[in-house]
Amino acid sequence: MMKAMGMAAKQAAKKLALLGTGEKNALLDAISANLLARTPEILEANANDRKNAEEAGLSPALIDRLLLNEGRIASMVEGLKTVRDLEDPVGIVKEMRTLPNGLQVGKKSVPLGVVGIIYESRPNVTIDTAALCLKSGNALILRGGKEAIFSNKILVSIVQDSLEALGYDRTFVQLIEDLSYETAGEFMRLHEYVDVLIPRGSAKLISRVVREATVPVIETGVGNCHVYVDDSADFDMALSIILNAKTQRTGVCNAMESLLVHGAVAESFLPLLESALTAHGVTVYADEEARAIVPVFEAATEEDYATEYLDLKMSLKVVKDLPEAMAHIERYGTGHSEAILTANYAHAMTFLQEVDAAAVYVNASTRFTDGSELGMGMEMGISTQKLHARGPVGLKELTTSKYIIFGSGQIRK
Amino acid sequence: MMKAMGMAAKQAAKKLALLGTGEKNALLDAISANLLARTPEILEANANDRKNAEEAGLSPALIDRLLLNEGRIASMVEGLKTVRDLEDPVGIVKEMRTLPNGLQVGKKSVPLGVVGIIYESRPNVTIDTAALCLKSGNALILRGGKEAIFSNKILVSIVQDSLEALGYDRTFVQLIEDLSYETAGEFMRLHEYVDVLIPRGSAKLISRVVREATVPVIETGVGNCHVYVDDSADFDMALSIILNAKTQRTGVCNAMESLLVHGAVAESFLPLLESALTAHGVTVYADEEARAIVPVFEAATEEDYATEYLDLKMSLKVVKDLPEAMAHIERYGTGHSEAILTANYAHAMTFLQEVDAAAVYVNASTRFTDGSELGMGMEMGISTQKLHARGPVGLKELTTSKYIIFGSGQIRK
Repeated sequence: MMKAMGMAAKQAAKKLALLGTGEKNALLDAISANLLARTPEILEANANDRKNAEEAGLSPALIDRLLLNEGRIASMVEGLKTVRDLEDPVGIVKEMRTLPNGLQVGKKSVPLGVVGIIYESRPNVTIDTAALCLKSGNALILRGGKEAIFSNKILVSIVQDSLEALGYDRTFVQLIEDLSYETAGEFMRLHEYVDVLIPRGSAKLISRVVREATVPVIETGVGNCHVYVDDSADFDMALSIILNAKTQRTGVCNAMESLLVHGAVAESFLPLLESALTAHGVTVYADEEARAIVPVFEAATEEDYATEYLDLKMSLKVVKDLPEAMAHIERYGTGHSEAILTANYAHAMTFLQEVDAAAVYVNASTRFTDGSELGMGMEMGISTQKLHARGPVGLKELTTSKYIIFGSGQIRK
Repeated sequence: MMKAMGMAAKQAAKKLALLGTGEKNALLDAISANLLARTPEILEANANDRKNAEEAGLSPALIDRLLLNEGRIASMVEGLKTVRDLEDPVGIVKEMRTLPNGLQVGKKSVPLGVVGIIYESRPNVTIDTAALCLKSGNALILRGGKEAIFSNKILVSIVQDSLEALGYDRTFVQLIEDLSYETAGEFMRLHEYVDVLIPRGSAKLISRVVREATVPVIETGVGNCHVYVDDSADFDMALSIILNAKTQRTGVCNAMESLLVHGAVAESFLPLLESALTAHGVTVYADEEARAIVPVFEAATEEDYATEYLDLKMSLKVVKDLPEAMAHIERYGTGHSEAILTANYAHAMTFLQEVDAAAVYVNASTRFTDGSELGMGMEMGISTQKLHARGPVGLKELTTSKYIIFGSGQIRK
């Protein structure tokens, strides 16, 4: 079954690659209109998912992630409009030059072909990724979580009906409805048909994909992000950034999970920090040095420093200097987003230079590692690997290039 | 053992990432000088490899691929000089801009980290890849073939001695000396330490790596390249390009393996082609339509069209038009290099637009898909996948990027 879906996607990709910007934008507009027109169907399907989730005993936070209402549907439509208004990433020729033998060589951006995504929970991902793939000329195969299956089915039907109404193949966007473990495995090994697979979800899901996939993978998401408060940091700025990075939204990969504080300012800064965090209901797991100053902090275990809480919890460690902070980040970080708060120019530059992560910040919240904040509209996920795309995966990252070469009879000497 | 090597490489990568261009260039010069000074040792080790190869009954062509002599060592040194003179790909900041909130965001090029290569036969690859990795600030782990083990060992020692003489760690470049199947498998699954793995060799090797690796892979090399002679092609140009693409060098991935000829010109063109190819000793496996015109062509089987001969052999098929030619290429091509020979503007543009390959040519030989021809100095291999790098993998393709973000207290709203 997966093979048939892969073949259909590959055929779809050929057609999609030839669509012009106007055609692709019209398609996104049609999907927007149909999402609004068919809102009652979406709400009904979503109610089914949430009823099942309640019966299965899912947490209120998870059920909230599942929820679609008119406001969230309006946000999806907003997202479609944003993507429509972004520059078409396909067909851009870069570095066109003439070689000494007269050959004219350029690199042209082209769609990747067939994109696969395996994701969990939030059904808006279904529409976001369809929008990004269609605009970038890629066919898409989606494999969502079983908790959102009714919502995903109606959303993909609406996309497919919109495609069909405009004379395109429904196979431009396909949903895997068989959610078995085996079928997911088959999907991961469909390298003959799928050009890239993006897992978006738990660390467990991502690690299975890395282990089993023969399709090239863009690893996303696990973010054990650190903020390091240097001895020269401005305390007010530090408190504001730490609160933002930890509490503005907790269930996201760019939230701060661990705080490092220079020993020279621990005694003066930690009490201020404690009262600010307590006011926001944040539990802190700290090392002995910090607990000697603020005894109400819980004791941290080794495991705490490796934990992505995705919750109002964080780990904290007092370090003796910048090198110790960077060594800690190297050991426990996941290469997502890391920040230094400092007034020291040399420390800022060293941190930027030496910390190995998708995004490295000076004096700002880690929460900006996000496609929409960085002007990319939205994203397929946030890559924490180094190959192909690092950081948010947007339209441009859904393309590859081909050399186009205009000759007049040249042969190699 | 592989884990220890991986850890050492990761530590090496941290140091390499901080080297300046001058330091890296001095290192390449030191390697050049030592290759020349220690030529007798290299020749002796290489003689050992060739003796073993003869005893093992390897073909003269394979033994020639193994051969190192003073000329080939001079070529390696030439390659090192070329790489030294290329622009340092590390530390280039692109797209630096200021967001509405005042954050300054840029993408800085940084080394990938640890590069792994699994390759066969030619020992010059050892020096070429070491040069590319050192210049791009990457640590390298090499796993060559057992037929070249003595040559590879002496070459890597020379690189390591050069490193040590300049005060660097020998672990910047490491050779896997245990050539067992199991150790190769361990290497492929070393994703905790290795950032990219490049297999360079037979289709069998590449397919094993794609199947087993958990390290991100850049697939290289298999090239079933086509030339399509359109009905409007200039015959003289066509003969010159076909001969060049097939015979200028046969054992390479960018050589032509299959020729497609428009039916309207088959009767006039094929006899000319036959005499040109015969003069160069090329055997042609052709379809019935071509054989009706030139009976001395051998009969092609289905398998011939899927074969990368790497020899003075080729397949040939008469097609009725451009769409049939493109459909054939889609079915049998490996996404490497594809060429159309035509005087028809619309056909040229359609071919460039629709054929999905790393390099698409109009009126030129496929042999130009090559790092040095395209001004990249040399290459780690030629990528036929779409992720990260497509076409020759040179210095720039050995880097990734990180977002660097300069703030002044920004938090996310």
